[in-house]
Amino acid sequence: MSALVLRQGALARSTLLSRPIVGTASLLTRGVAGPSRRAFSLSARARIQADKPKQASLALQDGVRQREERSENAGQVVGEPGKGVEGPHYQDQIPMAENVLTDTNITGAWTMMNPIYTEAELDTVQVVGRPPITVADKAAHGTVKFLRKCFDFLTRYKAVEIPQSVLQQNPIPIAELRAKGQLLSDQKWLFRFILLESIAGVPGMVGGTLRHLRSMRLLRRDGGWIHSLLEEAENERMHLLTFMTMAQPSIITRGLVLAAQGVFYNAFFLTYLFSPKSAHRFVGALEEEAVRTYTHCIEDMEAGLIPEWKDHPAPRIAIDYWRLPSDSKLIDVIRAVRADEATHRFVNHSLANLDQKKDFNPFALVEANAETRGAKWGFTREESANFAKEQQQKLIQAAQDQSPAHQQ
Amino acid sequence: MSALVLRQGALARSTLLSRPIVGTASLLTRGVAGPSRRAFSLSARARIQADKPKQASLALQDGVRQREERSENAGQVVGEPGKGVEGPHYQDQIPMAENVLTDTNITGAWTMMNPIYTEAELDTVQVVGRPPITVADKAAHGTVKFLRKCFDFLTRYKAVEIPQSVLQQNPIPIAELRAKGQLLSDQKWLFRFILLESIAGVPGMVGGTLRHLRSMRLLRRDGGWIHSLLEEAENERMHLLTFMTMAQPSIITRGLVLAAQGVFYNAFFLTYLFSPKSAHRFVGALEEEAVRTYTHCIEDMEAGLIPEWKDHPAPRIAIDYWRLPSDSKLIDVIRAVRADEATHRFVNHSLANLDQKKDFNPFALVEANAETRGAKWGFTREESANFAKEQQQKLIQAAQDQSPAHQQ
Repeated sequence: MSALVLRQGALARSTLLSRPIVGTASLLTRGVAGPSRRAFSLSARARIQADKPKQASLALQDGVRQREERSENAGQVVGEPGKGVEGPHYQDQIPMAENVLTDTNITGAWTMMNPIYTEAELDTVQVVGRPPITVADKAAHGTVKFLRKCFDFLTRYKAVEIPQSVLQQNPIPIAELRAKGQLLSDQKWLFRFILLESIAGVPGMVGGTLRHLRSMRLLRRDGGWIHSLLEEAENERMHLLTFMTMAQPSIITRGLVLAAQGVFYNAFFLTYLFSPKSAHRFVGALEEEAVRTYTHCIEDMEAGLIPEWKDHPAPRIAIDYWRLPSDSKLIDVIRAVRADEATHRFVNHSLANLDQKKDFNPFALVEANAETRGAKWGFTREESANFAKEQQQKLIQAAQDQSPAHQQ
Repeated sequence: MSALVLRQGALARSTLLSRPIVGTASLLTRGVAGPSRRAFSLSARARIQADKPKQASLALQDGVRQREERSENAGQVVGEPGKGVEGPHYQDQIPMAENVLTDTNITGAWTMMNPIYTEAELDTVQVVGRPPITVADKAAHGTVKFLRKCFDFLTRYKAVEIPQSVLQQNPIPIAELRAKGQLLSDQKWLFRFILLESIAGVPGMVGGTLRHLRSMRLLRRDGGWIHSLLEEAENERMHLLTFMTMAQPSIITRGLVLAAQGVFYNAFFLTYLFSPKSAHRFVGALEEEAVRTYTHCIEDMEAGLIPEWKDHPAPRIAIDYWRLPSDSKLIDVIRAVRADEATHRFVNHSLANLDQKKDFNPFALVEANAETRGAKWGFTREESANFAKEQQQKLIQAAQDQSPAHQQ
C-alpha cells in the first residue's frame, strides 16, 4: 500500500485506518484506494498490457499521435495516455464522512489535495541534496546558495552548532546565546519563515500558468503536470497563512515581501519560459534549503532553545489544513510543513529530470510514498518511468480483481 | 436540493440519483450532499447564528481582524469566515464508486471540479446579457463587441437568420448558403471554436495567479476566489482539447492562436492587476457572446444545417470529462460546453459586482443551480450576500440534523 499512496493518499490512507464504511468496504479491504479500483477501457488495457516500448504523444488526434509515435526521434517517454495519467477524477474519491461529521474541528475549506502525514512519515524526512551535474544544475544550485547567503544575512541567521556543554547547563543561557547571534528568537524564526514562504508559493503558480498556456498555445494535452504545480503553490501559500496567524509583520517585512515577490515572480517566469528544467531544478535546490532550515528549527525546539514555543498550540488553520488532532502543538505543524517541503524537493528534482515536452507527470495519479519523498532527493527519469508503469499496472490489477468475471 | 448544487454538485446530484451506497446512505437520504452535512465548530455556529451585520476581514490574526471589523469603513461584506467559505475539502466528497467501477468509459483524468449536467439543465441555457451600467462596464462591453466584430470578420461569420422558406426546401441548399457566406461549414465552426477557446482559458488563470500573489503579498486569506478562477481556466482548456480531437489546425491557425495568446495574456494581466472588477465584467460580457455563438451553432445543427455533424459521435475526451453516456453525440458536447460558458458568464458578472478586496467568493462551496446560471446574467452583490448566507444556514441545519443529539 505504501507505494500506492494516492494523490488523495492521506484520504485513502486514513479511510483505510478508520472503520471502513459498509458498501465502500469492498473498495478498501485489499487496501487499495478509490481511484485505483477504476475499471479500464479495453483499449487502455490493451495498450498498457501490450507493453510496447513506451512512446506516447500529447497530440489529441489519433492520426497525429500515431505519426509522432512512429517517428524516428520519438524516443521513450515517461507514462502513456490512458487511465489516470492526469490524476484521479474528484468523483472517484472515498469520503471521510464519519471524520467530517464527527470532528467539529474540520471546517473543510481547502479544496486542492494536500498531504496528511502519519507520525512515522513525519520522522522520515531527512536533509538530503542532489549533487548538481550539468552546468544548468550548477547555475541553479549556485543561485540558491547565493540567495540563501543574502537571506541568512538579512535574517541574521547563523547555522551554528550549540555545544553540548552549553546545552547541558540548566537553565540553558538562551538570552545570552541569542545576544551572541547563535540562536534565533521565535520572532526571528517567524520573520524568516514568512519571507521564505511568501516567495515559495510563486514557482508552482508560474509553472502551472506556463504549462496551461503552453497546452493551449500548442493545442495539446498537458500530461498531468499543471495540478501538481498548482497544488504546490497552494500548499506553500497555506504555510504562509499558517505562520501569519502567529506574527503581525512590520511594515518593513511587508515591504520586503512585496519587493521580493515583484522581482522573483518575473525572474522565475522568464526562467521557466526559457528553461523549465532549470526552473524545477532551482526549486528542488531551494526546497533542500527549506528542509534544512525547518530541521534546524525543529531541533532547536526539541532542545528547548525556543522556550516561547514550548507546547505552543497549533494554529486552527493548520489543524484544519493538515487535519491534525485538535490538541496538536506548533511543533507538529512545523514538522508537517517540513514534510511538505520535502515533497516539493522530491517532486521538483524528479520533474527536472523529465522531458518537459513529452513526459507525463508520474505523480499525477499517485504520489511516491512519504518515506521516499522524505529520504530521497528525487527520481531519475528511469525511476519515474518505472514508477508510472508500476502504478498503471497496480490499477489494472485492481480493476481486474474488481471485475465481475473475477468475482464469480 | 436544486439550490444546493455543491461545487461537486454533479457528483452530489448523480450520487443521489444513483442507488445510494449503503453506509453513506445516511448522508444521502435527506437529499443533502456530503459537504453540506459537515458538523460545525461551535465558534463558527455561534458566529453565524449571532447574525451580526455581515462584516468580515481576510486578516489572519484575531486582533487585526477585530480591529478591521470594528473600523468605521468596514461596511458589509459578502460571506464571512467559517464553514466552507473557501470550498469543500476534497476529503468531504461522496464517491461514485459504482459508476467508476462499472463504467469502462471513465478514465477519470480530470482533477478539478467540472460540472455535469442533466438534460433539463442543458435546456435552461438562454442568451442573456447584463446591460452595462458604469463607464467601466461600457468599456468592457465595448471591447468585447469590437473583438467580436474582428473575430466574426476573421472567421467569416455572419449571424444571419435563414428564412423558413429556405429551411423548408428539401434538401436544404446548404452548399449554396455556405457559398453565399450565410452558413458556416463544420470546419469553419471548428476554426472559430478553437480560436475562441484558445484565449478563453487565459482569464481564469490570470485571475487565479493574481489573487494568489495578492494573498501572499498582503499576507491575507484569499476568500475562496482562486479555485473558482482556476477551475474556469481548466474548463476552458478542456473545451479546446475537446475540439482539438476533431480538427488539425493549419499553421496559420496556430500562428493566430499563438499571437492572440501573447497579446491577450499580457493585456488581461494588466487589466486584472489594475481593475479586477472590469476584468471580471469583461469576461462576463465575453461569455455572453460565447453562449450566443454556441446557441447559434446548436440551432444550425438542429435545423440540419451542418450535415457533417449529424449524429457525429462525441469525442472520448468529452465523454470522460463531462461523464456523458458512451453513446453521446457531438451536439450533447456542444450543449455542455454552452452550459459551461453560461456558468462562467454568471460567475464572472457576479464576481464583478463584489468588493474585490473584502468579499468572499459566494460560490466557493456551493454553486448557484444550473437553472439560475443558465437563465440569469449573474447575482447582484446583495443577491450574492443572501446566497452565501442561505448556504451557510443550510449547512448549519444539515449539521444539526446530523448531530447525535438530534438523532436520538
